[in-house]
Amino acid sequence: MKKFIKLNPSQLLISVFVVSISVGTLLLKLPFSTHDHIKWIDALFIATSAMTVTGLATVDPGTTFTTFGQLIIALLIQVGGLGIMSFAVLIFIMLGKKIGLKERLLMQHALNQTSVGGIIKLVKYLFVFSITIEMIAMVFLAIRWVPQYGLSKGLFYSFFHSISAFNNAGFALWPDNLIQYVGDPIINIVISFLFIIGGIGFTVLVDVWKKRSYRKLSLHTKLMLTGTLVLNIVAMFFIFCVEYSNPQTLGNLSLGDKLWASYFQAVSPRTAGFNTVDMGGLDETTIFFIIILMFIGAGSGSTGGGIKLTTALVIGLATVTFLRGKNDIVVSKRTINSSFILKALAITMISIVFVILGILLLNITEKEASFLDIMFEVVSAFGTVGLSTGLTGMLTFAGKQIIIFIMFLGKIGPLTLMFSLASPSKEKIRYPQEDILTG
Amino acid sequence: MKKFIKLNPSQLLISVFVVSISVGTLLLKLPFSTHDHIKWIDALFIATSAMTVTGLATVDPGTTFTTFGQLIIALLIQVGGLGIMSFAVLIFIMLGKKIGLKERLLMQHALNQTSVGGIIKLVKYLFVFSITIEMIAMVFLAIRWVPQYGLSKGLFYSFFHSISAFNNAGFALWPDNLIQYVGDPIINIVISFLFIIGGIGFTVLVDVWKKRSYRKLSLHTKLMLTGTLVLNIVAMFFIFCVEYSNPQTLGNLSLGDKLWASYFQAVSPRTAGFNTVDMGGLDETTIFFIIILMFIGAGSGSTGGGIKLTTALVIGLATVTFLRGKNDIVVSKRTINSSFILKALAITMISIVFVILGILLLNITEKEASFLDIMFEVVSAFGTVGLSTGLTGMLTFAGKQIIIFIMFLGKIGPLTLMFSLASPSKEKIRYPQEDILTG
Ligand SMILES: [K+]
Ligand SMILES: [K+]
Repeated sequence: MKKFIKLNPSQLLISVFVVSISVGTLLLKLPFSTHDHIKWIDALFIATSAMTVTGLATVDPGTTFTTFGQLIIALLIQVGGLGIMSFAVLIFIMLGKKIGLKERLLMQHALNQTSVGGIIKLVKYLFVFSITIEMIAMVFLAIRWVPQYGLSKGLFYSFFHSISAFNNAGFALWPDNLIQYVGDPIINIVISFLFIIGGIGFTVLVDVWKKRSYRKLSLHTKLMLTGTLVLNIVAMFFIFCVEYSNPQTLGNLSLGDKLWASYFQAVSPRTAGFNTVDMGGLDETTIFFIIILMFIGAGSGSTGGGIKLTTALVIGLATVTFLRGKNDIVVSKRTINSSFILKALAITMISIVFVILGILLLNITEKEASFLDIMFEVVSAFGTVGLSTGLTGMLTFAGKQIIIFIMFLGKIGPLTLMFSLASPSKEKIRYPQEDILTG
Repeated sequence: MKKFIKLNPSQLLISVFVVSISVGTLLLKLPFSTHDHIKWIDALFIATSAMTVTGLATVDPGTTFTTFGQLIIALLIQVGGLGIMSFAVLIFIMLGKKIGLKERLLMQHALNQTSVGGIIKLVKYLFVFSITIEMIAMVFLAIRWVPQYGLSKGLFYSFFHSISAFNNAGFALWPDNLIQYVGDPIINIVISFLFIIGGIGFTVLVDVWKKRSYRKLSLHTKLMLTGTLVLNIVAMFFIFCVEYSNPQTLGNLSLGDKLWASYFQAVSPRTAGFNTVDMGGLDETTIFFIIILMFIGAGSGSTGGGIKLTTALVIGLATVTFLRGKNDIVVSKRTINSSFILKALAITMISIVFVILGILLLNITEKEASFLDIMFEVVSAFGTVGLSTGLTGMLTFAGKQIIIFIMFLGKIGPLTLMFSLASPSKEKIRYPQEDILTG
């Protein structure tokens, strides 16, 4: 135990994830977890997918697993989504142990908070808030599903999908995900509300709750709110226009259903991963567009993945600032520190490198698959999104291993991994500057 | 004339390119330029492709154009490759006019030199050096082609391909480019020597010529030499391994020819655009890998395109520096100014955005083409590379227009365009800094 604690925060985080996924795999492999026998690789795949709140599935969760198995999946999602760290701290609290700086630093790392103080308070809020939201949403979902499936199955379905949506897991218990509810207002509103709240980042919610005035909000909150709104509107418009007459997606729907479907498929790719239209039927243009949305992802410190919206915004703002011949990135009368540019650049580049390596590897193992489907699958796994054009179910054994690894990487975060490998060192000598040519 | 001079450097550069391409289009459309009638759009396409030294072709240059037409193409390549700017200054010199600061700034912009002084001298060197290299190479190529095609055709072919190679244009007068010379040492060595020299950047050559010692070389030169060597070796190894048993590319070649082909196809994608194996027959993994090479491109101030090798290196070094927890990018005991990071970031991001927009547009116009072929075509045009998996000849009218525009953008440089649109302004107010969360 002493040796375990001696690991640095990143190594500890990775260890905890590995242990949880292993336990999850064992539980899903239990005879009463599935109706029929499933392979170890599929149990590992589903456990990793649930723990990393991705939602990709090599077997159909609805028909493969028993209610017990589905409960395990829901628990893994909840553990993964809220963050093992918050759980670890909670267990420390419940055991009455004093929380040391080391654990608090670990939490800070996990939730990406800028100050150490108030972390514990935040985790308590986080826990209470999440459970409350999930319970309220469960009631709303039950309005639809109890009449449809009866009390016990209806409630369980409401419970499962409430957890899956709030934690941005994207798991659904129907083989075609939520396609049958494409025009259903309750399902569209409740599910998307859950994953937007879960994906915008807890700090944003706390900030909105405390300030209650746009002007007083922190820069981070303003960027997240405006960015989310603009990106969602653009995405909805794009999907609506491109897919309008595609018979495999929006073509045969009424105008109202077309709008619901465009809305849902616009907000879902940035980590939620649910779908109300067939991803395999989308136009290649839309598929490529969704790949970009999946890569950008949700908010920092949320249940979502991707490089994060603020990272993308900092890069975009840095580019615009450079083009305008200015030095400081100024938004809403605040200057963004240049160290954030370097951080955003590093996050984006490492992510691009990992995604490219993933695509190259999967291209080698999946000879039959088209390049675009492979690219979609890799970015979906890396951004822990869970959408698929249909490749997941056809993956080879090697392909499954690659996607498992990418989901793991995507959730742990490339930065965390790299930090754990590299030991930071102080600059000792400062060398003279020299200009080079770029562009 | 007065009004023309009042344009800022970027606008002037764009104007000159537009005029040259228009004149080129008219000349290629002349009855004695082609054996049969060609469409205006194809004349425009070839003129743009030659002037931007891209090498993509909607009609086969070898069989479509007469020797006169091919001469026009060679001239457009030479004008485009050496840079209209150097020509403009030369014309000014020849007319005995004093070169004003404005013209010198224009030159500086075009050649990406860090100081205004010595620009004119550089252009003179550039001109003499290029012609000399091209003439020497022409002699070597004639050794192969005069015996094969007779004196007049053999010399013309040597002349044409020497210009096409040195300027990284990638135009060849055989329908299958250089595939018939896959194992020919003379062609492999002379052609690749030409485009590597032409693509590494004139400043690097001058530096090597003057210093003649690696230790004394400028940081830019060191980065370019090391980067080019490492990237070429990695690329050769990659292509050799992936394509080794592919019957459509290396599979049926002898080991020696396999090595020549891997070498050639490794060094050519970073702007040269010649090919000795069938691009359409490559494994999807190799195609994707070549897309990355094409995006990176050649050296600053060279006849090549892409975001440039140093840009990619700065981004990579910045990422590594960040991961090591350091602030300064240190290479070879020199610190790279942080302003270069912002510049490299901006260049890369604008390029990515343009490429993405191009892919989305071409996806809409080319319904029949596969996504990977479209991606390849757009990056090839943007990096002014000229390789194609076969899509160029099948482009729709709208698709041709899009590729013409992308080649133009790729050569003029996204930065130049953006600078010409935006008017730089001084920072007036400095706002307080505020932290945000990324990643
Ligand atoms: K997900
Ligand atoms: K080229």
